[in-house]
Amino acid sequence: MSKGMLIVLSGPSGVGKGTVRQELTRRNKGQFIYSVSMTTRQMRPGEENGVDYFFSSEDDFKQAIKDDQMLEYNQYVGNYYGTPRKYVEQTLNRGQDVFLEIDVGGAMQVKEKMPDGVFIFLTPPDLQSLRGRITGRGTDSPATIDRRMDRAVNEINLMKEYDYAVVNDVVSLAADRIEAIIESEHLKVERVIQDYLKVLGVKNDYKTNY
Amino acid sequence: MSKGMLIVLSGPSGVGKGTVRQELTRRNKGQFIYSVSMTTRQMRPGEENGVDYFFSSEDDFKQAIKDDQMLEYNQYVGNYYGTPRKYVEQTLNRGQDVFLEIDVGGAMQVKEKMPDGVFIFLTPPDLQSLRGRITGRGTDSPATIDRRMDRAVNEINLMKEYDYAVVNDVVSLAADRIEAIIESEHLKVERVIQDYLKVLGVKNDYKTNY
Repeated sequence: MSKGMLIVLSGPSGVGKGTVRQELTRRNKGQFIYSVSMTTRQMRPGEENGVDYFFSSEDDFKQAIKDDQMLEYNQYVGNYYGTPRKYVEQTLNRGQDVFLEIDVGGAMQVKEKMPDGVFIFLTPPDLQSLRGRITGRGTDSPATIDRRMDRAVNEINLMKEYDYAVVNDVVSLAADRIEAIIESEHLKVERVIQDYLKVLGVKNDYKTNY
Repeated sequence: MSKGMLIVLSGPSGVGKGTVRQELTRRNKGQFIYSVSMTTRQMRPGEENGVDYFFSSEDDFKQAIKDDQMLEYNQYVGNYYGTPRKYVEQTLNRGQDVFLEIDVGGAMQVKEKMPDGVFIFLTPPDLQSLRGRITGRGTDSPATIDRRMDRAVNEINLMKEYDYAVVNDVVSLAADRIEAIIESEHLKVERVIQDYLKVLGVKNDYKTNY
């Protein structure tokens, strides 16, 4: 059986990664498993361990980092957030695709550890719409908004590190594009040649990592 | 404006390349231009120059080969068949995708000259169905059919030279897969990053061939 595929959706803050991910999850009929993050922050009412997050103590999280058990992690407002490696690897080894939705810093950490993944960069149609989304989040000062925009532009410069760029103009269209990418990646010769040649009974001298 | 993309559909004899190409052409709403081949064979009743083929004299065809004006060519039952380079390049330079449906020998010639193309290998679901197609073509002897099957198996071994492998189990499904590949290839970062960064007004130090 072939290994599953790691799909990483990332992009600048405010681009709408979460909304696109939810649309994909809503449509998803078991083709991929959404990877649950681990965090040290307090569980909130209504949240479930293993569904919303794997909730962890700070000591356990730090130990997991030390043991190279985190595919990526970061700190935000005093709490740790990250992707446990074991869960991802076990799912891939079962032959199932894993979907990660993470920030650009996290995506670059994952790329270092799992370069065979499919890295998709979600990009805003234009900077005005990004500013609109960033402004729309609250009642922040113009200076704060400018700082967020600067950070977003820096993050957009990381697009070149990705395999695909998808414009988030309309959420359902962005989701369509990502589905096309996933379908197409599954048709790549290096992923399927071993299985096909076996089915066809053709002698196979092709070496692959998959 | 970005250059168009060269899409090459190939696969073993008898796999049904022509049928899948016709289904794609039927659906196609101008996203790609089907490349018209050049041939030295006689025009048949109902055929049109520039639509079915570019009809050419043998001298002109040989001169085109000499002048490196053919992307690929071969000889079949005394006639030349091939793909004129100029038509393909002009269409790509206008920003339009070009679709070639050719045999594996031709595809390998094109790959040498235009390695940036998207090379799709159409593969039979199993050897029995391929034998069925090859047998179904006429009233050939078992020895002839065996020879064709041997050739087809040799051609299947060229799968590793391609970017994608698409099973031709059901024609409409094979066409769906090829459409997903084309959509997905258009989302590759190296193809779109220049345009996006320009629209976003982000400084761009990314070098690309596209």
